[in-house]
Amino acid sequence: MNSAKKDPKPKIAVTMGDPRGIGPEIVAKAFARAAPHDFCVPLVLGDVAVLSRTVQRLNLGLRVAEVEEEGLRDIPAGVLPVLPVSTLSSEKEPGEIPPGESSRASFAYVERAGRMAVEGKVEAMVTAPVSKEAIHRAGIAFRGHTEYLAEISGTRDFAMMLAGDRLKVTLVTTHVPLETVAKLLTEEKIFSVIEITARGLQEYFELRSPRMAVAALNPHAGEGGLFGNEEGIISRAVQRARDRRLAVSGPLPADSLFHRVQMGEFDAVVCMYHDQGLIPLKLLHFDTAVNVTLGLPFVRTSVDHGVAYDIAGKGLANSRSMEEAIRLGARMARRKKGRR
Amino acid sequence: MNSAKKDPKPKIAVTMGDPRGIGPEIVAKAFARAAPHDFCVPLVLGDVAVLSRTVQRLNLGLRVAEVEEEGLRDIPAGVLPVLPVSTLSSEKEPGEIPPGESSRASFAYVERAGRMAVEGKVEAMVTAPVSKEAIHRAGIAFRGHTEYLAEISGTRDFAMMLAGDRLKVTLVTTHVPLETVAKLLTEEKIFSVIEITARGLQEYFELRSPRMAVAALNPHAGEGGLFGNEEGIISRAVQRARDRRLAVSGPLPADSLFHRVQMGEFDAVVCMYHDQGLIPLKLLHFDTAVNVTLGLPFVRTSVDHGVAYDIAGKGLANSRSMEEAIRLGARMARRKKGRR
Repeated sequence: MNSAKKDPKPKIAVTMGDPRGIGPEIVAKAFARAAPHDFCVPLVLGDVAVLSRTVQRLNLGLRVAEVEEEGLRDIPAGVLPVLPVSTLSSEKEPGEIPPGESSRASFAYVERAGRMAVEGKVEAMVTAPVSKEAIHRAGIAFRGHTEYLAEISGTRDFAMMLAGDRLKVTLVTTHVPLETVAKLLTEEKIFSVIEITARGLQEYFELRSPRMAVAALNPHAGEGGLFGNEEGIISRAVQRARDRRLAVSGPLPADSLFHRVQMGEFDAVVCMYHDQGLIPLKLLHFDTAVNVTLGLPFVRTSVDHGVAYDIAGKGLANSRSMEEAIRLGARMARRKKGRR
Repeated sequence: MNSAKKDPKPKIAVTMGDPRGIGPEIVAKAFARAAPHDFCVPLVLGDVAVLSRTVQRLNLGLRVAEVEEEGLRDIPAGVLPVLPVSTLSSEKEPGEIPPGESSRASFAYVERAGRMAVEGKVEAMVTAPVSKEAIHRAGIAFRGHTEYLAEISGTRDFAMMLAGDRLKVTLVTTHVPLETVAKLLTEEKIFSVIEITARGLQEYFELRSPRMAVAALNPHAGEGGLFGNEEGIISRAVQRARDRRLAVSGPLPADSLFHRVQMGEFDAVVCMYHDQGLIPLKLLHFDTAVNVTLGLPFVRTSVDHGVAYDIAGKGLANSRSMEEAIRLGARMARRKKGRR
């Protein structure tokens, strides 16, 4: 408690993302716009040459400084502190960097940041977008940041949350074919996500008794079994959570549920699959939603969008989600620290 | 053309919906608020006792009049013209009507209105909500209005559209378990819905060259086959549509697509499953969206919500979607008539 009071600024590792994508641009822009030094001790895991070129091209008025894992506390605002993990060519446009090299580098940033987080060297990690597809093509089995970080930290029960001001969703299944979703739903898994959601809302969002909804899987919540029976499984998970005194309703028909959230009826929605949660989230909070992994031993946030190769290097990328991800990551880390 | 000019008001059959639900209330309210007599010749297929009681209880200032299929033209505003299809007790609250009786009646309204539409006695039908589940329990195999009307009119290629001012979605699959969606997607079916959507937008919404998007099935559009391969099928259907000079893009990741529609990039989205289209639709157009069946030989619109048994008989139901459904049905019927 004392050390937290003396030094309330949490140390945060920010990954640069795929060098061929918009990651370098949104990281640099976020440092220029959001001044993260004011509320945390940030460190970017990435590439000095790529970031220097980005800062120059966009005229961001930042100085890129190569730093070590330690000794970060005194770096002034206006400096973009980079722990060099890759050494790519500074001469190249994003699209000219060889895809394999770029993908392996993007994974190496995550690997290094993950290790630092697991070892307690940083209190939070914030990730820029990578391409799972490109990393796969480079020969690395990678199912996504969330799954990877759970694995290296030995976390069994975790959940991906997408958080906007009004709508927060957690996902029972994430990056899997839609066809397999129904088979992957178990009472245990749904109950676990409900519980992790409740704990996350209490721990990090200061909601003492969060009001949660659980979405149905099938249209019209299966209309009494007419189209699908998974609502029975969901019902049992909800009942178990209610038995533990959690304020949770469901399964509710997904099509009208998000309007109810918009009207203020629930704090969060537990969703059965990726697009069920992300379609409404991106409609309500397009530029400002943050991806949060709940259940890990450290705080992890991320932007809620992809690499956007098509606009990389053009100065067109919006850094709002990255700014929000760093801000929320720092806030969550402070709350976690405050309780220790 | 001449007769359309002489009498431009189309004849429209409105079904009353499940007597135990909010159907009678929203039909009566819509007549009181939207004055449909001004722009069409309306006829309600329902129950005189139930509607009389509804009008009285809500103090709507309407007179319920029993009418025949013919001889409707001279009915003044302020009169709710009802073709009696059922004779339920006027003494009962909605929830006290026996479920079997109520469900069979709700189906009988659709049956009668459907027959009138097929026989050309009305130019459009507008439907209030029924419960598929309750109709099933009453022993009638009924998969939904859309499917039923396609069947009785011998229509092979049809599509369900949900239309709001900004967002219009059509569905490749509708009331089926989510698990079966992937198996139901064929190039032929997707292509057919794209084509019906284009024709519908041209015929009824006066868009000469509608800009259409086709949603992907899997998260991140499958991310190059990492999670699901159905995007290949969708791609081929899109290519076929482009070969026919339709302006269509896809498959596009569904999570960010609807934001693009919100920003004005597309006129309509062809969706692979019910909630993929209805989640964003109900967020953007909660009270005002209309359900339209495209491809039938007659015009059919409907409210975009369910029976809402929980608020039936309480005077709380919002009739906006029903008003919009009658208005849009009349507008579509006039356009269809004008072209003949």
